[in-house]
Amino acid sequence: MTVHGDSMSGNCYKVQLVLNMLGVEHRWQEMSILAGDTQTSAFLVKNASGKIPLIELDDGHVLSESNAIMGYLAAGSSLIPSDNFINAKMYQWMFFEQYSHEPYIAVARFIQLYLGLPEERLVEYQSLHVKGHKALSVMDAELAAQPFLCGDQFTLADIALFAYTHVAHQGGFELGHYPNIRQWLARITLQAGFIAMRSKA
Amino acid sequence: MTVHGDSMSGNCYKVQLVLNMLGVEHRWQEMSILAGDTQTSAFLVKNASGKIPLIELDDGHVLSESNAIMGYLAAGSSLIPSDNFINAKMYQWMFFEQYSHEPYIAVARFIQLYLGLPEERLVEYQSLHVKGHKALSVMDAELAAQPFLCGDQFTLADIALFAYTHVAHQGGFELGHYPNIRQWLARITLQAGFIAMRSKA
Repeated sequence: MTVHGDSMSGNCYKVQLVLNMLGVEHRWQEMSILAGDTQTSAFLVKNASGKIPLIELDDGHVLSESNAIMGYLAAGSSLIPSDNFINAKMYQWMFFEQYSHEPYIAVARFIQLYLGLPEERLVEYQSLHVKGHKALSVMDAELAAQPFLCGDQFTLADIALFAYTHVAHQGGFELGHYPNIRQWLARITLQAGFIAMRSKA
Repeated sequence: MTVHGDSMSGNCYKVQLVLNMLGVEHRWQEMSILAGDTQTSAFLVKNASGKIPLIELDDGHVLSESNAIMGYLAAGSSLIPSDNFINAKMYQWMFFEQYSHEPYIAVARFIQLYLGLPEERLVEYQSLHVKGHKALSVMDAELAAQPFLCGDQFTLADIALFAYTHVAHQGGFELGHYPNIRQWLARITLQAGFIAMRSKA
């Protein structure tokens, strides 16, 4: 299996964490989103949406969307709850991540860290902050009474939301307001197989 | 089980389709997003994110996110592939729906159908069209060689993407350019238990 990913992308980092935590054998094909590697005709043949991460099985089948890839790689492992309701809760948080968290927090971080917060995107940046803080508040409330997002079990939901939450400060989100999130982040770094995300050079 | 939903919302309609196709017993609690029913303190206690659909089990547990709810309701049915890779493909399309389809097509439809396409949102509307058409192109290409998004099997991925695709014309998306999508839409309306979405009065 080949994994096409950019080590500096939070969505690719999710997949990297699962591969490392479960010890899945694979070949990592490093790509650079910023350098345009995902928009070449060679890559668009593999994935018409031009996005990574993408996994390519030995039989040629491909799978995209970070959260779906994690589900495939972790099938049958302790990272996926066996109870039907808790399993659905895990997916609830993963859909929340893609719809109500990543589009605000990851994009604000991109504007600040990679673009240097240009004047013409300041209004957008501030609007992303309102929505990003709403997402963080929802997470912090849930984590007040339980160690992980689905309860006692560490699952893919935690990995999915760890990716961009642990670097949210690079997008101007002060995590001091979210004590439960800070403890949860620390708890995740203690999981077996945890590795840090590659940072911007 | 109580289902909190707005019959005119495509995300709620997905859940309605699964309930009807599988004959799941439930109590439907009709709410109006536009009238503010999801922002009352009584509802925010149930779901801090203030969103529907939401299901509430008899033991008080709640589950949000349309695609996660569908996964819960359809567990063990033919709407969910048993093969691990095809199951992941189903989730791939469901994450694609929430990240690359709904935010463009549903929002363009809202601006046109509900707001009457006001001048001040025209630039945004046009930008939503570019991204919405990209999503439709990806779907149309996939459906060229197979009847459903995951192959021969009708799954939750088809229901998830049917919801806002079949009303995309109300957001200005001309589906004449997508013959495979049009045939796929017709195929879905023939599935046992299919019901139409309630339209704007």
